[in-house]
Amino acid sequence: MTAADSRAVVDLLGVLAYAELTAFDRLAEDARLAPTLEGRAALARMAAAEMGHHDRLAARLRQLGADPAVAMAPFVPALDGFHEGTRPRTWLEGLVKAYVGDGLAADFYREIAGFLPEPDRSLILEVLADTGHAEFAVREVRTALRSQRALAGRLALWGRRLVGEAISQSQAVIAEREGLAQLIMEGTGDLTGIARLVDRITAAHTERMRTLGLKP
Amino acid sequence: MTAADSRAVVDLLGVLAYAELTAFDRLAEDARLAPTLEGRAALARMAAAEMGHHDRLAARLRQLGADPAVAMAPFVPALDGFHEGTRPRTWLEGLVKAYVGDGLAADFYREIAGFLPEPDRSLILEVLADTGHAEFAVREVRTALRSQRALAGRLALWGRRLVGEAISQSQAVIAEREGLAQLIMEGTGDLTGIARLVDRITAAHTERMRTLGLKP
Repeated sequence: MTAADSRAVVDLLGVLAYAELTAFDRLAEDARLAPTLEGRAALARMAAAEMGHHDRLAARLRQLGADPAVAMAPFVPALDGFHEGTRPRTWLEGLVKAYVGDGLAADFYREIAGFLPEPDRSLILEVLADTGHAEFAVREVRTALRSQRALAGRLALWGRRLVGEAISQSQAVIAEREGLAQLIMEGTGDLTGIARLVDRITAAHTERMRTLGLKP
Repeated sequence: MTAADSRAVVDLLGVLAYAELTAFDRLAEDARLAPTLEGRAALARMAAAEMGHHDRLAARLRQLGADPAVAMAPFVPALDGFHEGTRPRTWLEGLVKAYVGDGLAADFYREIAGFLPEPDRSLILEVLADTGHAEFAVREVRTALRSQRALAGRLALWGRRLVGEAISQSQAVIAEREGLAQLIMEGTGDLTGIARLVDRITAAHTERMRTLGLKP
């Protein structure tokens, strides 16, 4: 691995470590919006699982000789910006954000991880594995939509806003980190490769919106 | 075990399960006040550990045929009241609350657990074990006091306020749950026994304040 490649690995582990920390934060915050104690405990449990992922990424960063706080720092503005710009006002908006937003981010990171050598590729795929959140969110949202069909339009709009914010923030992240941009360019091969990557991510997003019962 | 005793066990497991859920919440909230990413990750990690404890208590409640949400419900007002009444305004107040407040609560619950048969006694003692929070809080508070000695008076006052609130809330909990009150009365034997229990809890509290470098 060249020095540029290993910087890209540290970048990717760093952005993911911070993403897990913010996921923890956000799930903990959303847990307080839960209408029942069961829902609150379920979300708090998922938040705890995200911290487990964070710890594994931080441990790997230390193993590579990187300070996790230093590796995370460059990504704080973009990720905080995304969450500030998409703060759920209701329990259901929080669930849609968790399912649609995290799904989108996970797909993006998975694509990049595919360009990395082991053991980082497997580590990243493992920490991106769903913590039961997806199934929970789908069930709650679909149940709510059955009794309040009028919510569908508003939640679909919310889903589209999440995508817009996510795209603009990931562009900001890539623009800032040369190593990451290069990794994606080399990994995809050419512009056609990048277009195919974007197509795959978009298709998976459309599928998730449909699963929720929302118009993509 | 009589029916009254087993109601007391469910009560104790229920109040503890909810206490762990609120501990999670509060640590997650305090994590956001952290001045560094390391501090934020440390508190988030402790919050995650509390959820692990919550899950063990909830599993035991289910084993006893009790619904965790139902067992927790009677204690929501008192515990939420305590936290609403003692919301830290700074990172250091949060740490003092975590160390002094949680220490006090843990001592109280440990005393009651001592009156229970196994396996509940051991389960409760295990989930009350410190998750590394104490050492972290002591280190951070002592470091802060070395450079800002003027904080000592304000934090000592804060510590006393925590005790006052904790006492009034635990009285409210015991007054509401007959089984718990009876368990304490029978366990301690008589009023002298209760006085000794209160003495032990007070002495441990004084010790914790001194450990922080604060006047009890």
